[in-house]
Amino acid sequence: MAKVNSNYGKLADSYLFAEIAKRAATFTRDNPNATIYKLGIGDTTEAITPHVLEGLRRGVEKLGDVRTYSGYGNEQGNKALREAIAVFYTQRGVCLDSSEIFVSDGAKTDSANIQSIFSQDSVVAVQDPAYPVYVDSNVASGRTGEFNKERGQYDDLVYMPCNSENDFVPQIPSNLSGRKFPDLIYLCSPNNPTGAVMSRKSLEEFVGAARENKSIIIFDAAYSWYINDQNLPQSIYEIAGAKECAIEINSFSKIAGFTGVRLGWAVVPKQAVTEDSEAGTLNRMWNRRQTTFFNGASNIAQDGGLEAFSPKGKEECSGLVNYYMNNAKMIRQGLELLNIKVFGGDNAPYLWMQNPNGIGSWEFFDKMLR
Amino acid sequence: MAKVNSNYGKLADSYLFAEIAKRAATFTRDNPNATIYKLGIGDTTEAITPHVLEGLRRGVEKLGDVRTYSGYGNEQGNKALREAIAVFYTQRGVCLDSSEIFVSDGAKTDSANIQSIFSQDSVVAVQDPAYPVYVDSNVASGRTGEFNKERGQYDDLVYMPCNSENDFVPQIPSNLSGRKFPDLIYLCSPNNPTGAVMSRKSLEEFVGAARENKSIIIFDAAYSWYINDQNLPQSIYEIAGAKECAIEINSFSKIAGFTGVRLGWAVVPKQAVTEDSEAGTLNRMWNRRQTTFFNGASNIAQDGGLEAFSPKGKEECSGLVNYYMNNAKMIRQGLELLNIKVFGGDNAPYLWMQNPNGIGSWEFFDKMLR
Repeated sequence: MAKVNSNYGKLADSYLFAEIAKRAATFTRDNPNATIYKLGIGDTTEAITPHVLEGLRRGVEKLGDVRTYSGYGNEQGNKALREAIAVFYTQRGVCLDSSEIFVSDGAKTDSANIQSIFSQDSVVAVQDPAYPVYVDSNVASGRTGEFNKERGQYDDLVYMPCNSENDFVPQIPSNLSGRKFPDLIYLCSPNNPTGAVMSRKSLEEFVGAARENKSIIIFDAAYSWYINDQNLPQSIYEIAGAKECAIEINSFSKIAGFTGVRLGWAVVPKQAVTEDSEAGTLNRMWNRRQTTFFNGASNIAQDGGLEAFSPKGKEECSGLVNYYMNNAKMIRQGLELLNIKVFGGDNAPYLWMQNPNGIGSWEFFDKMLR
Repeated sequence: MAKVNSNYGKLADSYLFAEIAKRAATFTRDNPNATIYKLGIGDTTEAITPHVLEGLRRGVEKLGDVRTYSGYGNEQGNKALREAIAVFYTQRGVCLDSSEIFVSDGAKTDSANIQSIFSQDSVVAVQDPAYPVYVDSNVASGRTGEFNKERGQYDDLVYMPCNSENDFVPQIPSNLSGRKFPDLIYLCSPNNPTGAVMSRKSLEEFVGAARENKSIIIFDAAYSWYINDQNLPQSIYEIAGAKECAIEINSFSKIAGFTGVRLGWAVVPKQAVTEDSEAGTLNRMWNRRQTTFFNGASNIAQDGGLEAFSPKGKEECSGLVNYYMNNAKMIRQGLELLNIKVFGGDNAPYLWMQNPNGIGSWEFFDKMLR
């Protein structure tokens, strides 16, 4: 008699986007001629740039000719693309072997699946607020208690508050009331949704604590191209010792406009270790996970991704990034003119604002809509 | 102190393809001018057909123009494609709502991930031999015991032998020596690797037993287009009552040559129930799983898939299927001329042969190679 995974019963519904859609639909019905700018989901809107598009075109054309056709590729990604990503890291002063890079169909899948190679009883820490995927993937996999409606938090999950008092920079978990130090720590910088970027010093503290406690940091760097300030780290591997304790996840979505094309990568360094594993083990486990549960990113997407890392492609992608950063700047300036306090938008496309006069989020949403 | 998922330690290495690659490499070194035909992995070799290629091209061109650009799509797949798949099923006499169809990046990922919505203590049954993904995904998720090297099998996994004595058709598990009837039963028909196809009667027996025991059948129909004999079911939903107890997985890989493009789908009917869930629950759980762990198949691949289901596209895909079936026929005839006993190849591209004179598999492999 089959039974379901009861952890799914713990998952709180994500009312947020459903409620946004409902209110927007009502408004549109009443105001059929109004144009709505949707600022809720961090999606891309601009066309894929000419040179990168050529890569996608070439990917398609190769499949139309039996002499260049390719079937199953390597689950870990095409060798040329893995090597191009390794070269990309050298510009950040980071040396990686291409066998430490795993091409995927995007940062969301990697963020969600990475927990599966760790022990079921791992204690997990997330920033608050956080990209819901870090939380939900661990809830569904049984690493949390029930959802506490009063607190709006899951039991047995460690939350690292990020708010205006700490400049939206997470603090290393302390005050654990007898609980063990977290085994898995999710960090997202530049942050979705607050737009805050972790400083070198702050990341050094996390790397130090992770090494001391033999914890693993899952570092989501999907927005790293949006960093203007050259003093801010774009990769966690710019921090000494990070290869021993950190997995980095990245994406072509917000670089090249690939949100619909689906392409990303994860770095699992060979030096990364846990309490019960030696160097190389985590890398081999992720390789086993990907070769068993995944069949490689689309070969068309990979041909496009390769062009995004060519000199011409990178120039184009920087143009896209500048476009989205200008949008953020415009919104920020507009809000500041109204004396609204705004965070982010300097080194990230995200803005996080303080509602004026203490009004609630939904009330402000309705004000914006109307 | 982070620890790894210890179930990965149980996974037996897949020596098969590594050993094939090693022997082939040695041979190539010694015989640099020899052409090797690789018959090991069921990969596609023929170019994508003109009309389907047009779909892929259109998918790319849309992304190059801001007026037609699209970012994140629905995790469940584009509405038009889900509806086209539903129409495809009506030709098999099966009515499905498009909300029961979940587009994915291929049958491998769905086959591997589907177990995650079921209870950790589920008893799993697989055909022997079986596509390794069914086994390995459950080993990694902790549903089996250790690998028994002597038997070449995992403890606590139920094997349904498929051999020449039972025409490679699995029997409903019995002789369970006190163990409970399996909760999850993986069936692949047409079968990878044996080429056997389950009859209507045989599938009816499985559906009957699954309903009686409230078990769930995971039905892999990736090769269903290869069925010539109109008396053989192409979908498990052609069997009355199957919607209550079966999830079906399918793919564009072997229809349209999409092994590298990555596109497939899973059907989770609303009527499907387990011991502890009502109608609709499994469908909602898979929806939650896909929206949390996945971000949709590539929009380019989906535009190609849509054309594969157009009248012209279907005609082209049938041509591809015929090509691979002719290959199987040629190999079969050649082997039969040598008085070698061969199974499959009638309604599946796979052939399964009996080594002559009782020689071992690797000995025969070397004979073929040389």
